[in-house]
Amino acid sequence: MNSENSIRIDADRLWRSLMEMARIGATDKGGVCRLAMTDLDQVGRNVLERWCREIGCSHSLDLAGNLFIRRAGADDGLPAVMTGSHLDSQPTGGRFDGVYGVLAGLEVLRTLVEHGVTTRAPLELAVWNNEEGSRFSPPMMGSGAYAGVFELDWVYALEDADGVTVREELKRLEWIGEGLGDREVDAYFEAHIEQGPILENEQTTIGVVTGAQGQRWYELDVYGQEAHAGPTPMPLRKDALVCTAGMIQAVNRIGLDNAPDACATCGLIRVVPGSRNVIPGHVWTSIDTRHPDDRVLEDMEGAMRREFDAIADRYGCRYDLSVFWVSPATPFDRECVDLVRKGAAQGGYSHRDMISGAGHDAVYMARKVPTAMIFVPCEGGISHNESENADPEDLAAGCQVLLDSMLARAGVA
Amino acid sequence: MNSENSIRIDADRLWRSLMEMARIGATDKGGVCRLAMTDLDQVGRNVLERWCREIGCSHSLDLAGNLFIRRAGADDGLPAVMTGSHLDSQPTGGRFDGVYGVLAGLEVLRTLVEHGVTTRAPLELAVWNNEEGSRFSPPMMGSGAYAGVFELDWVYALEDADGVTVREELKRLEWIGEGLGDREVDAYFEAHIEQGPILENEQTTIGVVTGAQGQRWYELDVYGQEAHAGPTPMPLRKDALVCTAGMIQAVNRIGLDNAPDACATCGLIRVVPGSRNVIPGHVWTSIDTRHPDDRVLEDMEGAMRREFDAIADRYGCRYDLSVFWVSPATPFDRECVDLVRKGAAQGGYSHRDMISGAGHDAVYMARKVPTAMIFVPCEGGISHNESENADPEDLAAGCQVLLDSMLARAGVA
Repeated sequence: MNSENSIRIDADRLWRSLMEMARIGATDKGGVCRLAMTDLDQVGRNVLERWCREIGCSHSLDLAGNLFIRRAGADDGLPAVMTGSHLDSQPTGGRFDGVYGVLAGLEVLRTLVEHGVTTRAPLELAVWNNEEGSRFSPPMMGSGAYAGVFELDWVYALEDADGVTVREELKRLEWIGEGLGDREVDAYFEAHIEQGPILENEQTTIGVVTGAQGQRWYELDVYGQEAHAGPTPMPLRKDALVCTAGMIQAVNRIGLDNAPDACATCGLIRVVPGSRNVIPGHVWTSIDTRHPDDRVLEDMEGAMRREFDAIADRYGCRYDLSVFWVSPATPFDRECVDLVRKGAAQGGYSHRDMISGAGHDAVYMARKVPTAMIFVPCEGGISHNESENADPEDLAAGCQVLLDSMLARAGVA
Repeated sequence: MNSENSIRIDADRLWRSLMEMARIGATDKGGVCRLAMTDLDQVGRNVLERWCREIGCSHSLDLAGNLFIRRAGADDGLPAVMTGSHLDSQPTGGRFDGVYGVLAGLEVLRTLVEHGVTTRAPLELAVWNNEEGSRFSPPMMGSGAYAGVFELDWVYALEDADGVTVREELKRLEWIGEGLGDREVDAYFEAHIEQGPILENEQTTIGVVTGAQGQRWYELDVYGQEAHAGPTPMPLRKDALVCTAGMIQAVNRIGLDNAPDACATCGLIRVVPGSRNVIPGHVWTSIDTRHPDDRVLEDMEGAMRREFDAIADRYGCRYDLSVFWVSPATPFDRECVDLVRKGAAQGGYSHRDMISGAGHDAVYMARKVPTAMIFVPCEGGISHNESENADPEDLAAGCQVLLDSMLARAGVA
């Protein structure tokens, strides 16, 4: 199949469905607030289910409140080719994060129905429950439960800020279905806005996502000597903040040394005692490092410790670097990634291989089945923000690549 | 007069009076909590007044609640030679900060009485009200009101955390006397623990304080681009915290470049949005710079702005540096300082010229009358702390220098 004989998704229909879904929980600033397992989240699913019934698809729920839309294949006993994402949003979220992946999947199904195409293998569209983790932490809860990363009872017991549990909300919404992680799935594809600036910066339409970064998060404590900022001469100081400043710059340098794939970020800092005229005696900082290769992450940690040793010596301080959280690098399936790359080429879209820096449902699904992702640009790389925006043409291109990848994997009857 | 024929203060009596005063508001950890204008502060004054009556001295109050003990001179119409400090403490304060200056003054008076020495000019011992500024801010309230730095009505209206005003407390304690800033004073000497590590580090007994540092406090805002720590490649970042870290190191470097007299400290830092996996978009920092020469402070500000320009450029950020508070450098009186230096030499004490890094009542008094200070070492340079400590021999040495300086200034009848 090539671009000449490929069936085409309907860009306008995709955009209209995105805009209609964006009305559910719309905020004054043009964003969306549709928190997981709220009434608004239910309304979003109701709309989607109605659209799916209109094209003859069935739907079902699993024990974690994940929703699956299914279109039968010619050989319906084959494992399904699945796509999906999530409908829940951040409290001040945008119109595309998650929703795009779900409605691109819907548009794939609509296009096939419209053109009377039946795939050999069945197709499924998953709506993962609580990807954002805003109301109930952790994020990617539903796909994590599906992939066996989280125990179901542990998930059920999670509470929101008002003490309401996931179990209570699932019961209230009648979202508790059957089974968990036991669907027959051949491959999983997920379309998503990039949530970063690379594609826009390079004026590239399609990101062929080859995997998700490994992440190592640390906590850094630096201890110096608290003292009066007036009578304590500079050469006698053990200033924990000056020492930490050196370490923050070292973290940034180590990230740059391992560019373009590495990231290294200090996002939080706290100073003790925290007074204008007291030399800080203790500083606490968070460090977030990411790279697609876990061995590079190990090397980066080694480089940090070597640099921190030297910096602590220089300022007469001592430090403690402890690992806070680790998520191993997740390479996606070579064949599925190849289908995405071919789909992009076939559509005539500019494209480049890239790594997902953020977490997605696909990262957990990759632990169970061959997986790939398709990224499209978002304006200014901005996401988790009411001003999140994307170009309709780019969204259509990603959806077309999703269609062609799924068709290639599922086969045409 | 030289060390052979000088009358000697009584080191044991000084120590006993310090330890007796330390019982008033004593804390479990060996410190003192005797907040300004509390009942405990009154008890401290009661004890002092009793001791002064025992040696025939009179006492009086001014409109700001400052207490003055007076010993008549042979030519009592001459302006007085004054010493003093404060009896109020920090909430978790020590046994020496302030109290030492008051009780060293008492010991001077006791020694003169004991030896039957009458000075030509009268002597006065001032107990300045609310030097610490812990309960009622600002610090050095009483001496500032005396020196005309603060308006009396403004001082009266100051409130503590419970909404109690200075006026109410002064009335309750019957501390409102007569006059303000109108005493006839020839010179002012103040003995104090150093509150820094220089004397102890150099094993020097007496600090001949030649003036107080000028202080310039700033607020620094650095603005970058808030973004997701995962999908934002290192080379595309505008990380406000990495930029600020460079500026913090520049501040420290500029302090060192102007050592030994300069100080430069960042004591506070806040990051926006403050999340482990978000690149900081805005960082706020406080900067405290000090130097005995205001022109050097200006040069330091110039150096900061030059370095900040370059650093902001390097990281694609912008910044705003605003002056928060300025206190000009206060050189002490050359003749008075010389008397202290001679007193130290005459006593055979190791001594060095130094600058006061912290604020003291003497800094405000220097605006009105010829002033000098005498510093003695404190353990580890630690002050404003219940573990504050000092060596009885050092305290006695400082008191002896105070006696000899005051005698030299007032003359012996």
